[in-house]
Amino acid sequence: MSLILTFLGATSTHRIKIAVTAAKLLSGQGKRVLLAGNMEPTMSMLLNFSVGCDPQEIAINLHVVYLQASVLLERSWNDIKQLESEYLKTPLLKEVYGQELAVLPGMDSALALNAIRQYDESGNYDVIIYCGYGDSRTIRMFGMPDFISWYWRRFHQLFVNSDIGKILTEAPIIQTLINNLFNFNWMDNNFVHPIDQTISFLEKGKEAVADPKRVVAFLVSTPEILELAACRYLWGSSQQINLTVGGLILVTSGNMDAKNMIPGEFSPLAVSVFPDRSTSDWQILMDSLPDFEAQALEAPKPIEINVCERKVSLFLPGFEKKQIKLTQHGPEVTVEAGDQRRNISLPSSLIGRSVTGAKFQHNYLIISF
Amino acid sequence: MSLILTFLGATSTHRIKIAVTAAKLLSGQGKRVLLAGNMEPTMSMLLNFSVGCDPQEIAINLHVVYLQASVLLERSWNDIKQLESEYLKTPLLKEVYGQELAVLPGMDSALALNAIRQYDESGNYDVIIYCGYGDSRTIRMFGMPDFISWYWRRFHQLFVNSDIGKILTEAPIIQTLINNLFNFNWMDNNFVHPIDQTISFLEKGKEAVADPKRVVAFLVSTPEILELAACRYLWGSSQQINLTVGGLILVTSGNMDAKNMIPGEFSPLAVSVFPDRSTSDWQILMDSLPDFEAQALEAPKPIEINVCERKVSLFLPGFEKKQIKLTQHGPEVTVEAGDQRRNISLPSSLIGRSVTGAKFQHNYLIISF
Repeated sequence: MSLILTFLGATSTHRIKIAVTAAKLLSGQGKRVLLAGNMEPTMSMLLNFSVGCDPQEIAINLHVVYLQASVLLERSWNDIKQLESEYLKTPLLKEVYGQELAVLPGMDSALALNAIRQYDESGNYDVIIYCGYGDSRTIRMFGMPDFISWYWRRFHQLFVNSDIGKILTEAPIIQTLINNLFNFNWMDNNFVHPIDQTISFLEKGKEAVADPKRVVAFLVSTPEILELAACRYLWGSSQQINLTVGGLILVTSGNMDAKNMIPGEFSPLAVSVFPDRSTSDWQILMDSLPDFEAQALEAPKPIEINVCERKVSLFLPGFEKKQIKLTQHGPEVTVEAGDQRRNISLPSSLIGRSVTGAKFQHNYLIISF
Repeated sequence: MSLILTFLGATSTHRIKIAVTAAKLLSGQGKRVLLAGNMEPTMSMLLNFSVGCDPQEIAINLHVVYLQASVLLERSWNDIKQLESEYLKTPLLKEVYGQELAVLPGMDSALALNAIRQYDESGNYDVIIYCGYGDSRTIRMFGMPDFISWYWRRFHQLFVNSDIGKILTEAPIIQTLINNLFNFNWMDNNFVHPIDQTISFLEKGKEAVADPKRVVAFLVSTPEILELAACRYLWGSSQQINLTVGGLILVTSGNMDAKNMIPGEFSPLAVSVFPDRSTSDWQILMDSLPDFEAQALEAPKPIEINVCERKVSLFLPGFEKKQIKLTQHGPEVTVEAGDQRRNISLPSSLIGRSVTGAKFQHNYLIISF
């Protein structure tokens, strides 16, 4: 299992420079590092190496790869066609070629997350540095396991309980018809197996994102007030998907004292100063990076649940009270902050209970049941 | 119909500052402007106004709105539930509330594009400035009408021709069953109507994106070499979805000559210099913006088709020859460049013909049939 490290912030060239520096630093410390980026040319230019769609070793312990969505889609498509041909007598998809498929919005995030999961499971890397878009898209990407498992819980149950669901699962005529079309019995238990696998995979993904030893983000900003504000918004948004933010890396051209340059609003995050200088000084750049793993463990937890007191505390920096909404329409409690909505998985003792109170103070939303 | 203007580049705060300046400039010229942005706080800070999810007039002719995905999803959900309840005797979705739904990757792009389309159709605005993420996500978003219409063409036909499709469209037992479940006949021509509407809507979207009088992007960069390279990549990627790039806006703190600061690689785009100074000088900032509409019309066209010579020319700056792939697996020709794949809609005289040659020179891919 790898540590997955990512960077959030308004200036992509700064984020990529820091990701490359971190990859050099950690691989130099003996960790097996995979640096995975988008197709934009910045990473190749900084590494002075033409990065491809399969990991290549460019220095001891340092592999690099571009997560090219169109290629990942092509590969996934071949897997899907293979699976279809195993299950269906008359496969539909065999005439569509992976090389034709255009990438729709959202596919790139799903494919990148899946690629990171596979690299993680390969056991080949101690650290995977994901150099993504560094904004709310990266946050939504890491939120996918949680969101999809919610959609599944909510809609699967509705469907099973519905008239249509009952007819489909009970009517022998439908089953006979489907068995005639396909050469397998999709209603028997074999069909449940891949669904169980999917659920377990989503649960594993949720656990990984929530664990600061597995996934952690660092904020990257200049001292400019607009960039700092954007960063603070990304900090709060990350908390909404249970993603730990381990610290703030401030990119400056001067040698000013970091503590004086940024407002107290980033407390209690640790702040590091990264000099905005040429990459001919890799050593100076590497020396200015924080200890990512240690800081991740010290950062505030996005959520804490106190079962005895029937209280759930969410750490939501970067938002004002009026930007946070709490609703309890469905079976779960939903918190909306910024543009992230989250259904909170409650322990069994709190499930089904109504919210009796909520207050927002010192960046914490405290919900009582 | 509005002109839809957007900005692409590596530094979000620069892009947003230019979008706000452009909104002030164009509304000052008497155009009715809608400035539509993401939820990130930068736009509100620059405007000194708390932007909401519905357009608000903050100055004469100037409306602002945040395209908040979670709110847009909630509103769309209510429309879907309404439609479902009209068509189904036993609606499934009525128990799921819009306030619960989390935004999955891709939904935000689809919702933003739909919102822009609705604001465009409202007739209330001469110009809509979309202040999006400014990277390949914005490009994929504007590519959606083209991509989805391709998926529809390709998969619909396969399905209709398949064994399953034939059974479903011919077997009376299936039709009877479905008619018993739903209170409408989904096989009759009424069902075709909304599909036709969707196709026509996608075609309109494709036409709009391809028309520099309707949709145009401008590049934003500092003179830093990494940012310029990222910009050039976005330029080429935009061409891949038929989106016109009207010019480059260079953000600099000095007063240097723009022509000398950037490499010739951006030719033939016009370059404007935007001073990196405080927004207390709005007038100076406004004066430095280009004439967006005039430049859009002078910019190179992404695609030109010469039916007589059986030649298709694609302008693909920012890529090397080895980064461009041409395939003809399915019924259409597919061009891949960067991380964008595109199936080219050919005029009827070229459809079904094989590619006889292709060359890439002076940033143009010229395909012969």
